[in-house]
Amino acid sequence: MARVSQAHLDARRRQILDGAAVCFARNGFHATSMQDVLKEVDLSAGAVYRYFSGKEELIAAIVSEVLGQVRASFEEAARLDPPPPPDVLVGEVLGRTLAARESLTVDGRPAFPRLVIQVWTETLRNEELAAVLREGYGSVRAAWARIVEAYQAAGTMRADVDPDHVARTMIASVLGFIAQQSLFGPVPVEVLGDGLRALMSVPEPGPDVREPVSRLG
Amino acid sequence: MARVSQAHLDARRRQILDGAAVCFARNGFHATSMQDVLKEVDLSAGAVYRYFSGKEELIAAIVSEVLGQVRASFEEAARLDPPPPPDVLVGEVLGRTLAARESLTVDGRPAFPRLVIQVWTETLRNEELAAVLREGYGSVRAAWARIVEAYQAAGTMRADVDPDHVARTMIASVLGFIAQQSLFGPVPVEVLGDGLRALMSVPEPGPDVREPVSRLG
Repeated sequence: MARVSQAHLDARRRQILDGAAVCFARNGFHATSMQDVLKEVDLSAGAVYRYFSGKEELIAAIVSEVLGQVRASFEEAARLDPPPPPDVLVGEVLGRTLAARESLTVDGRPAFPRLVIQVWTETLRNEELAAVLREGYGSVRAAWARIVEAYQAAGTMRADVDPDHVARTMIASVLGFIAQQSLFGPVPVEVLGDGLRALMSVPEPGPDVREPVSRLG
Repeated sequence: MARVSQAHLDARRRQILDGAAVCFARNGFHATSMQDVLKEVDLSAGAVYRYFSGKEELIAAIVSEVLGQVRASFEEAARLDPPPPPDVLVGEVLGRTLAARESLTVDGRPAFPRLVIQVWTETLRNEELAAVLREGYGSVRAAWARIVEAYQAAGTMRADVDPDHVARTMIASVLGFIAQQSLFGPVPVEVLGDGLRALMSVPEPGPDVREPVSRLG
């Protein structure tokens, strides 16, 4: 039996993960069969099952990989002193995440934003996948909270807001931006950076500025 | 035949829309049948079909109602001089949108965030629904852009950023916040307001502050 190099094994694994990601993005996890994945990657069942036991393991590997890369980027940023400002950091990490997957397409459009939405829906009825997502989200949120603490320590962000609330908000802006891409078509990542930068220019409200709440019927 | 009051007709219509929303939130649009909806609202087919021709009309009515209310809130805010600051406005409109639907639940949790995710996924394969969502999103985005123009005219937001980019970013933060609720459980709306307020306290970057991009491997 011929010896197979690690590089070959890695490339094969990559090929399977990418093919499965395209299938899941196209039709969702539930409506995709392992047969669909085999057909997409053009490999035999034996070749694929050598790496993954089935759909559950494939989707868990895809989700873990994305969240692991995102977490690593934020942990790296948290070690910088000071960390890059929020608009720069978000643009950088999201841009890198999308760029790494831009070769994967469905109907000529990027598959990744579509995959994200499909994963979310599947999460609503798949407790195993929900657990993977919850753990990954928790670690990204914790990394973001450390960055917020660094901003606050450096005096570049008000210190009276819970870092977790800022972490949730920054992640929300990225998740929502991805949802928009999936629903309404691709938009350059710079759009989100612009929007965050504009928000950073708004003067902080004093008590009297917050009064307009009551004016809105 | 007994005369039926407009109030009765409206209440019946509301009952059907709410029951359908719960069904779609629970199992998604695709896996929900009109039989499921009839059972949920406990009405005869005749009573329901008097109002809606089928699932397509139901989901279109639900989505249009939400987006119409959100658009109206932002258009109202755009007419205020000055409009409420972004953190207040987002908290206000999202809080109102969630509160109006808090009686609708699936497994004891708010149905609305779950419904939003289900609608997004269905949009990927349902061109009619996609058109409804696209139009509603377009009008909310346009209303937000007018608010941004008012901030910029009042000097409370930097004027060198395209209002549409800010509109997309503000909407992204809300959509992502809703997605988080659906995936990881309810969180008070104030969390998002806090996060936006913290972002507003970050000093605007000069050219040298943006340089850290290159430090992130």
